[in-house]
Amino acid sequence: MLNVKLARVGLPGAERPVAVLDDGRLVDLSSVTADIDPEFVAAVAAGNGPALGDLPVVDAGGRYGPPLNRPGKIVCIGMNYHEHAAETGQPTPTEPVLFMKAPDTIVGPDDTVLVPRDSTKTDWEVELGVVIGRTARYLDSVEEGLAHVAGYVLSHDVSEREFQLERGGQWDKGKNCETFNPLGPWLVTADEVPDPQALGLRLWVNGERKQNGSTADMVFGVGEIVRYLSRFMTLYPGDLINTGTPSGVALGQPEPKPYLRAGDVVELEIDGLGRQRQTFGAA
Amino acid sequence: MLNVKLARVGLPGAERPVAVLDDGRLVDLSSVTADIDPEFVAAVAAGNGPALGDLPVVDAGGRYGPPLNRPGKIVCIGMNYHEHAAETGQPTPTEPVLFMKAPDTIVGPDDTVLVPRDSTKTDWEVELGVVIGRTARYLDSVEEGLAHVAGYVLSHDVSEREFQLERGGQWDKGKNCETFNPLGPWLVTADEVPDPQALGLRLWVNGERKQNGSTADMVFGVGEIVRYLSRFMTLYPGDLINTGTPSGVALGQPEPKPYLRAGDVVELEIDGLGRQRQTFGAA
Repeated sequence: MLNVKLARVGLPGAERPVAVLDDGRLVDLSSVTADIDPEFVAAVAAGNGPALGDLPVVDAGGRYGPPLNRPGKIVCIGMNYHEHAAETGQPTPTEPVLFMKAPDTIVGPDDTVLVPRDSTKTDWEVELGVVIGRTARYLDSVEEGLAHVAGYVLSHDVSEREFQLERGGQWDKGKNCETFNPLGPWLVTADEVPDPQALGLRLWVNGERKQNGSTADMVFGVGEIVRYLSRFMTLYPGDLINTGTPSGVALGQPEPKPYLRAGDVVELEIDGLGRQRQTFGAA
Repeated sequence: MLNVKLARVGLPGAERPVAVLDDGRLVDLSSVTADIDPEFVAAVAAGNGPALGDLPVVDAGGRYGPPLNRPGKIVCIGMNYHEHAAETGQPTPTEPVLFMKAPDTIVGPDDTVLVPRDSTKTDWEVELGVVIGRTARYLDSVEEGLAHVAGYVLSHDVSEREFQLERGGQWDKGKNCETFNPLGPWLVTADEVPDPQALGLRLWVNGERKQNGSTADMVFGVGEIVRYLSRFMTLYPGDLINTGTPSGVALGQPEPKPYLRAGDVVELEIDGLGRQRQTFGAA
């Protein structure tokens, strides 16, 4: 098993695959895979990843791209933290709420995020991202669900609340604007995350802490989410699941709600999964 | 401009790209493109398609696969025919309702569709599929919207109504089961479809006609849909838009509603875009 942080470094569209060592140096994976793609994710999850000792080590530096090159799909779980459901005035869901983002919304962890034209309600959401490692159909148990996870990644589910909630139906309308899913810096393999339900998540806007939660507050845990989803769709290696956000989003604040504008800086992190920093721009 | 029917023929996962001539014979495109992928769709839409006269012609025969190999995303418009909105008891939408299907739901036009386990409400929906030819951001007019269309395709937006409407929120849950988007047989280039708002759509279950509509009944036409969507997301070459279904789905029938079961045969067609025939099986 390759228990590491996988990443992609380089300019947009020209990233190369690397493994990130504990001392920050990078192992160049270019000679063993063209990219961190679904095939490579499946190989790593199956214990067929490369032996890092034989590969060249290079110094860190430069831009981190998203650690996954275009997952096949992004499935998102809504209202999945007790405190977040409460802040939005909704009852806690009795089964997972599901919506989708297009894979083309993914950008690197520190890339610019664009506030859409005509947007007045662009909002933040720090989330634990789950990357599938084995094809999952009709799983029966939480344990089976967890066994199909390749690893975890910090994911920012940027959302436009007017588009999502006030423009004629279905949340997807406010979830798919260009650059709306910063991902990374790393895909951390599952064995490096002993308990995905014990991770702190935090987010700051212009230096002020807005979200400070724990995956312990999830309504449905990672294994249950994978099991549940596998009964409504087939999950494939490299697919990404955004598992919901804790409380503290702009939507849940008193009026006037502090939605994002061009120039704002958002930083977020999850224990062990690294940190993101985005300056927001205008589309 | 390459004004043709583009298709992919061969066994699942091993299809080769072809153009379909009016006499039914096939022009083998393998020497000019590896696949009908987003890059090829963009080239054709830009007038840089191959000259067919130089390419080998072969006899027809064998399976048609989906004419697109994994679009980047599938965006679907709901409640987009006046009569369908009426039959479901919903008001006509004032702006397009939007939901999504994962690209991995696509299968060939005559492939088996699987009724999901625990499904009691699997339903049919014949739809006009629109394939994007040029990257579309913040378009201003219906004319611009139409100018970004590469072509049209027959699309079957198979739906599980209990999953969609009764399982805790967001329609995507009933739209993404495995095999739920039969596509094809052909991608017909836009110049071959003089008026996308004057196409008859029909669907039969076990030989009995269930849907018989016209794209003239659409609430929002193709150009408006592309314009509207481009203000909420970026559309890329090869992206697929399912533009909604006319009346006559099982959901709109009196009780007991005639939902699909394993063994049922569904046939559908759109004027000029060919015909599909699926035998339903059990997941």
